[in-house]
Amino acid sequence: MPLLPSKARLAHVVFESDDRASKTFDIVLLVLILGSVAVTILDSVREIRATYGTLFWFLEWGVTILFTIEYLMRIWLSRNKKGYVFSFYGLVDLLATIPAYLSLFIVNTQYLIVIRSLRLLRVIRILKLGRYVSEADFLTQALYASKAKIQLFVGSVLSIVLIMGTVMYIVEGPESGYTSIPMAMYWAIVTLTTVGFGDITPLTPFGKFLASVIMLLGYAIIAVPTGIVTSELTAAKYKNVSPIRKTCPTCDLKDHDRDAAYCKFCGSELERIL
Amino acid sequence: MPLLPSKARLAHVVFESDDRASKTFDIVLLVLILGSVAVTILDSVREIRATYGTLFWFLEWGVTILFTIEYLMRIWLSRNKKGYVFSFYGLVDLLATIPAYLSLFIVNTQYLIVIRSLRLLRVIRILKLGRYVSEADFLTQALYASKAKIQLFVGSVLSIVLIMGTVMYIVEGPESGYTSIPMAMYWAIVTLTTVGFGDITPLTPFGKFLASVIMLLGYAIIAVPTGIVTSELTAAKYKNVSPIRKTCPTCDLKDHDRDAAYCKFCGSELERIL
Amino acid sequence: MPLLPSKARLAHVVFESDDRASKTFDIVLLVLILGSVAVTILDSVREIRATYGTLFWFLEWGVTILFTIEYLMRIWLSRNKKGYVFSFYGLVDLLATIPAYLSLFIVNTQYLIVIRSLRLLRVIRILKLGRYVSEADFLTQALYASKAKIQLFVGSVLSIVLIMGTVMYIVEGPESGYTSIPMAMYWAIVTLTTVGFGDITPLTPFGKFLASVIMLLGYAIIAVPTGIVTSELTAAKYKNVSPIRKTCPTCDLKDHDRDAAYCKFCGSELERIL
Amino acid sequence: MPLLPSKARLAHVVFESDDRASKTFDIVLLVLILGSVAVTILDSVREIRATYGTLFWFLEWGVTILFTIEYLMRIWLSRNKKGYVFSFYGLVDLLATIPAYLSLFIVNTQYLIVIRSLRLLRVIRILKLGRYVSEADFLTQALYASKAKIQLFVGSVLSIVLIMGTVMYIVEGPESGYTSIPMAMYWAIVTLTTVGFGDITPLTPFGKFLASVIMLLGYAIIAVPTGIVTSELTAAKYKNVSPIRKTCPTCDLKDHDRDAAYCKFCGSELERIL
Repeated sequence: MPLLPSKARLAHVVFESDDRASKTFDIVLLVLILGSVAVTILDSVREIRATYGTLFWFLEWGVTILFTIEYLMRIWLSRNKKGYVFSFYGLVDLLATIPAYLSLFIVNTQYLIVIRSLRLLRVIRILKLGRYVSEADFLTQALYASKAKIQLFVGSVLSIVLIMGTVMYIVEGPESGYTSIPMAMYWAIVTLTTVGFGDITPLTPFGKFLASVIMLLGYAIIAVPTGIVTSELTAAKYKNVSPIRKTCPTCDLKDHDRDAAYCKFCGSELERIL
Repeated sequence: MPLLPSKARLAHVVFESDDRASKTFDIVLLVLILGSVAVTILDSVREIRATYGTLFWFLEWGVTILFTIEYLMRIWLSRNKKGYVFSFYGLVDLLATIPAYLSLFIVNTQYLIVIRSLRLLRVIRILKLGRYVSEADFLTQALYASKAKIQLFVGSVLSIVLIMGTVMYIVEGPESGYTSIPMAMYWAIVTLTTVGFGDITPLTPFGKFLASVIMLLGYAIIAVPTGIVTSELTAAKYKNVSPIRKTCPTCDLKDHDRDAAYCKFCGSELERIL
Repeated sequence: MPLLPSKARLAHVVFESDDRASKTFDIVLLVLILGSVAVTILDSVREIRATYGTLFWFLEWGVTILFTIEYLMRIWLSRNKKGYVFSFYGLVDLLATIPAYLSLFIVNTQYLIVIRSLRLLRVIRILKLGRYVSEADFLTQALYASKAKIQLFVGSVLSIVLIMGTVMYIVEGPESGYTSIPMAMYWAIVTLTTVGFGDITPLTPFGKFLASVIMLLGYAIIAVPTGIVTSELTAAKYKNVSPIRKTCPTCDLKDHDRDAAYCKFCGSELERIL
Repeated sequence: MPLLPSKARLAHVVFESDDRASKTFDIVLLVLILGSVAVTILDSVREIRATYGTLFWFLEWGVTILFTIEYLMRIWLSRNKKGYVFSFYGLVDLLATIPAYLSLFIVNTQYLIVIRSLRLLRVIRILKLGRYVSEADFLTQALYASKAKIQLFVGSVLSIVLIMGTVMYIVEGPESGYTSIPMAMYWAIVTLTTVGFGDITPLTPFGKFLASVIMLLGYAIIAVPTGIVTSELTAAKYKNVSPIRKTCPTCDLKDHDRDAAYCKFCGSELERIL
């Protein structure tokens, strides 16, 4: 009787999710991912770090060792090792292991931005969760199908922001806070997207009038991306597709309405599906 | 002739809504619920409490006694007493009665948070209104049907907030108000949802650029939940589907309106579903 | 040859819009309405009033006289005089005439709020434009059809605002600006609707967490009214109605799909529309 | 062998996009447009201008000369020269060349607003990109089809802003910042569109209540334009309708896809529309 699992058995546990062992593996990994991200978040709060800093340090190293084992195991168990290492998840898994190792090399803790960047690396681990999501396909397809319209929309919004921002820059000027075209464009985006921080606001009457136009525009054009995405999702949903799609025996066309009796391209009678 | 209503009659008045007596009962209860919540709201305003405090105290006790009678009556009249007591509305009804009783035990009025919490309890009474809403089913079904897509969306938004927040925490840092990753995530949510309080705003040029990206993203991805919900509601509306779908015995057409008795394609009579 | 138009001719010019005279009447009225509202708006700006105040006074009296003539003319020309006077537009037309007359009685200009209220009356004239809008029906029907769902939605939002507001009132308290439950509810509405003035903001960590929940909720539930309205408009548009609607010769049912060959209620063969 | 391209060849390169030369021409133009706009944006930032001002001056003149050559070339190559010069893109191309020439005439740099206006002219060049967008048709048609409903919606929003703004002007008054009706209307737009700068906020309890009503209204009526645009896009998508609808000569079915050659109900051949 084997004391250690065979290589095939390990591969099944790591890559599949159908029996108890592989589901447990997935759950343990999920907990480690969420837990390590939570520790990173809490570690950035001064008061919490003061109290729990040492515990966090131990947890971080524990997680690092476990993720390193997981990474090396995935490489060993993969049939296509090169394919995995250079895939998206291969890179994410690698990045997930290195923060603690990197911190060994960064001795001088003066560069806060470096320390804070390491936190970002640790937070990237959240992307490892992507493996467990299958519902994404449907949404991604709907978004991909409307790619051209979305690009057009983004380009139009940026052009509006550019022109409106420059006009506000002329009308209000640096005295009101609109110190340059980039600053005015930043304000235009804050206003068009209806965020409205209030760090810069128009002070002249004509500026307020122009701002009103921009606000009404932003309020209305929100309808466009929503309309694009919704019509794609609705069309996909109601495309009148039956699970068993009729195929025309003559011309092989598959795209028939559910209630069609004859092929719309060649006129042949379609098979009845019972 | 009975002077008091029989138990069966009382049960009908409390649980049904079809004759005058039961409709009157429902209306009286509605008025009591809305009235007691209104009193709680007004009681929290110092100036109003100063003038009407005593009246409110009497009203609160009156309502408490009436809700206690209602609660005990529901228990007495229920066939499944245990089922009611531990149901959602059973708990809401119980919580609706206890604030005044609890206040008898809390003598020391120093703990403002306790007093304010009692107000929350009194406000929970609004949930008793849920019994009178039947239209909720349609909406709840549409939301439940898209549960997986909604979970995916929420997970994606939280991941974006986590990563974007951490990047802003690196770029801006505590000097700009982004004192920790949680604080930066709070700002990212304020910005992505287009609320834009303005209590924290980016001060560096690169921070403003990143903020612009987040704002445009938030402005666009509002389209996704809207698209999900709308496509579900539209599909449900246009399908007119009964849970049990009739199939035409002659031509096998399944696409019939719920109220159809004859097949629209071949005229055959459809089976009655009982 | 008549020098003055006959009563019938006048009635046609006032109530119809098909020949040149009646279209001219409509345009003149449109200009008067928009012009008098513009004058009221400009008159409220101190600097503009200082320069043009006297001109505005003359214009206001001119408009008042013209609207009075119009009002009296409509009464005289109406067949159902009582019906007109007590209708929505009858009341609007009356209110449109009285501001200048009222100002004769208000001698003491100390009560600014009275003067400002008269401005509101003058601005109400904009509602006279409603007569010229016919496209409103389609939208109004879609809104009316989803009345129940909209009521449910509004009730749910108010309940969320009530409960969330009270929780923030407990957590943050008057020290942070949440001085009473109404104040906290105002903040909750400002946040849920993603307006985000910033006049009140959460200061405690738990308050910011709760605020984040409210913001994400508000960001998502915007999908619901949009979904309701959109699905109504889409269903109405694509209800599969041909301009010539088939009527079942046997049971008189008009509601058939365009592709139906047999009546879904009685099975009779539907007439072919050629 | 020709050393210079023939006039016909040049015209093909400028106006078409199918072979390598014309695609290269398009790309070079694209880079020039985006590059000159980027230079204008950066040139408005004091610190960047201080360092790179001279380089920008040279680049601006280089671009001016190139755009002048392009403009003159388009005129020379056009068959309908007058048509081009007075068309939208003809005017944009002309405006794209003149900023640097204009600056030769403006000697006195005191008028900052003039200098800033020249920047706007230079930024207008972004509109030259419009030639390369073909996807716009689909969206523009959907928007044009719902023109009447959109106009009605805009008119209603402006009327709401007018009346609500005037009421807030009465209730809050100049002491709270609502100094005139235009100012109050500006605040109403800021609030209705959920931007919420926070530069003006209601201070009285009744004002806050009214503001809450406006916010909930704005939050809800965002559904209307979204519904209009979405239902148009969805209908257009699912209709697949050609402007000339084919009718089946045998069974009279009109509901055919644009690409259908045979009737889906009876199999007959559909007429070709030429």
